[in-house]
Amino acid sequence: MALIVQKYGGSSVGSIERIERVAQKAIATREAGHDVVVVVSAMKGETDRLMELARGAAQKQNPPPRELDLLLSTGEQATIALLTMVLQRMGHSARCYTGAQVRILTDNAFTKARILDIDAEPIDEDLKVGRIVVVAGFQGVDENGSITTLGRGGSDTTAVALAAALNADECQIYTDVDGVYTTDPRVVPKARRLERITFEEMLELASLGSKVLQIRAVEFAGKYHVPLRVLSTFEEGPGTLITYEDEDMEEPLISGIAFNRDEAKLSILGVPDKPGIAAHILGPVSNANIEVDMIVQNISNEGLTDFTFTVHKNDYEKAMGILEKTAKELGAREVFGDTKIVKLSLVGVGMRSHAGVASTMFSALANEGINIQMISTSEIKISTVIDDKYLELGVRALHSAFGLDAEEGAQVKVEGETVD
Amino acid sequence: MALIVQKYGGSSVGSIERIERVAQKAIATREAGHDVVVVVSAMKGETDRLMELARGAAQKQNPPPRELDLLLSTGEQATIALLTMVLQRMGHSARCYTGAQVRILTDNAFTKARILDIDAEPIDEDLKVGRIVVVAGFQGVDENGSITTLGRGGSDTTAVALAAALNADECQIYTDVDGVYTTDPRVVPKARRLERITFEEMLELASLGSKVLQIRAVEFAGKYHVPLRVLSTFEEGPGTLITYEDEDMEEPLISGIAFNRDEAKLSILGVPDKPGIAAHILGPVSNANIEVDMIVQNISNEGLTDFTFTVHKNDYEKAMGILEKTAKELGAREVFGDTKIVKLSLVGVGMRSHAGVASTMFSALANEGINIQMISTSEIKISTVIDDKYLELGVRALHSAFGLDAEEGAQVKVEGETVD
Repeated sequence: MALIVQKYGGSSVGSIERIERVAQKAIATREAGHDVVVVVSAMKGETDRLMELARGAAQKQNPPPRELDLLLSTGEQATIALLTMVLQRMGHSARCYTGAQVRILTDNAFTKARILDIDAEPIDEDLKVGRIVVVAGFQGVDENGSITTLGRGGSDTTAVALAAALNADECQIYTDVDGVYTTDPRVVPKARRLERITFEEMLELASLGSKVLQIRAVEFAGKYHVPLRVLSTFEEGPGTLITYEDEDMEEPLISGIAFNRDEAKLSILGVPDKPGIAAHILGPVSNANIEVDMIVQNISNEGLTDFTFTVHKNDYEKAMGILEKTAKELGAREVFGDTKIVKLSLVGVGMRSHAGVASTMFSALANEGINIQMISTSEIKISTVIDDKYLELGVRALHSAFGLDAEEGAQVKVEGETVD
Repeated sequence: MALIVQKYGGSSVGSIERIERVAQKAIATREAGHDVVVVVSAMKGETDRLMELARGAAQKQNPPPRELDLLLSTGEQATIALLTMVLQRMGHSARCYTGAQVRILTDNAFTKARILDIDAEPIDEDLKVGRIVVVAGFQGVDENGSITTLGRGGSDTTAVALAAALNADECQIYTDVDGVYTTDPRVVPKARRLERITFEEMLELASLGSKVLQIRAVEFAGKYHVPLRVLSTFEEGPGTLITYEDEDMEEPLISGIAFNRDEAKLSILGVPDKPGIAAHILGPVSNANIEVDMIVQNISNEGLTDFTFTVHKNDYEKAMGILEKTAKELGAREVFGDTKIVKLSLVGVGMRSHAGVASTMFSALANEGINIQMISTSEIKISTVIDDKYLELGVRALHSAFGLDAEEGAQVKVEGETVD
């Protein structure tokens, strides 16, 4: 008998019929002899409806964050009540809690609060008497009793934090995909579902734009050693287990290929190469609250160096304006940018102990005539920037080159991915 | 400088535009130098939407009450957030509280909880620093932290209870009518708005079917001596003040004429007149959870008596079935019923000290050829049952007979009445 925390997102609870399916899954787990805690998001569309009201109320101003959280938190509050009604109608003892009722104590950073503490005792009591416990995702309460929300992906974070507080055996994240794939199956039809992946790999994949799980929830799970499983609400199957590396674990060279279409590249060329130059270029950018992702500085040539970095496409215009000003100050030769790029990355803990991964990658791309514009590496990841028109070609080439392709005839089904 | 509690119902906050009007009214009161606490209901239509979801979740069963309350309470939670956003956008410091946050402590009778205690301190603090305070109506929290709702008319009750706890100078109930009328203006175009009315009169009017205020809120206000004012959200005007009788108060003979179309009459004739007979007849009716309103027993004639009572029309068939069984047991001569009746009542504290009110009433009805089927009286009320086809005629006759008609040309405007 295990303690399982299950999290269902907005599209999994988007109608009474879907809530009934969630109830059946929770009951099946309970009847298999496990203790079950279910975390749910707001019904699909509800958060949009509430945001629309908030925009009407605040007009051109930003809605005040305390009130916005109070408003948005009604979404999950409604879902937990409805799911508990369905569970009880199906004959199962069940009890539900809002974030404030659990209580999930957070700081008071409204709209993006951090969980500080969870009082697991009332839930433990309920589980002891055989109840299925239903908890509102995405929300908590600060020490003054004001309701807070955890920001995007908050329900995943709630589930993982609850699993940690309850010392659960597994935290199951139900989505509309049936697991984590070697790459996006819409780009590579031969993409394979992974049985297992490490937290580190999942973190890299999440940060590179694979939207199956929110990065915060993965970090949290890694930190508290909560085994995490991603699986489908709509299909049967074991999903993908995200765990710590262990010795029994078969360790493939590469776990997955991620890509990100949302970045743009900016370069400043012919900058005098002297100490502090990177800070001089990037300081004004980060002061403008623009997040910089990849940074590459070439070796100096005749006392001059080139400096390239990527930002989110939404920040491109703003970053370019700042960079042009910096270029004048520094007497740089030239500034240019490119929004038609894509970032393509290999991720795998296996590459730590295997030489040759990088060269295999670069050769595979070269064989297809794809020019690499930027490279940056970490211990378990190699990222490249290429022309965006080569995205599909590049992903497929790498997928084959690293032996990730599924057997002929393996079926892959993916609906639109969502995180909430 | 006074402390004013204002309550706005669902149609007053039915859209962002209407919420803006509510905000303007609250701000105007604040800018006139008063402390303001605003109690709001769920947006019109929202409670129906949530009930629809609950019915879907519970299917043919009744939704479990704890979860139903948790679900329904999201309605007012959304309204307080939106109203506070609008107040802040309009430049006013404002803060909002759910019932649990205030906290409004209730018993745990979900869907019809009673308020036990209110912690007024946080609201006092907000008022001290000039904030407009917004509180969710209709909801509270029990001692286990479960959210409760107060049942029909609960927002009125919240407002009155808050006014009592805060020792407010006035509790203003904003509705879509501009006050309490001498009778229903849709029946008598010459009906007049009352400047003042006593709690006792208002209670009688409310219990007789005038739906301006919920009877529980009036009782509560009377008990805690909270001056209550009914006025319109949509028009300017002083409304009607509901107070304790005081010596300065002009005391009209009759304050109003109420009627109720929802009752049906049942009679059992030729019953042996012996002690305990009333209990024998009414016991089985009340055991079936049927509420009995008027009860009349005629004097005994040759050891036999006739017994008549009224129930809500919805309970008529059930009550008739019970009465037929009782009649057999008692050897009664005959049982009959009538659903085509209406109850017509005069209300006025003045009638205490004035003889002749009853005879004036009966003459006025007789002059129009209206037969009186039942009569029952209390200290400040005389109720009659008449054939329902005479309703309008009877009300107008009484309205004139007691000098209640408005001056020629006085304007009366009434939209549909709502209570929530």
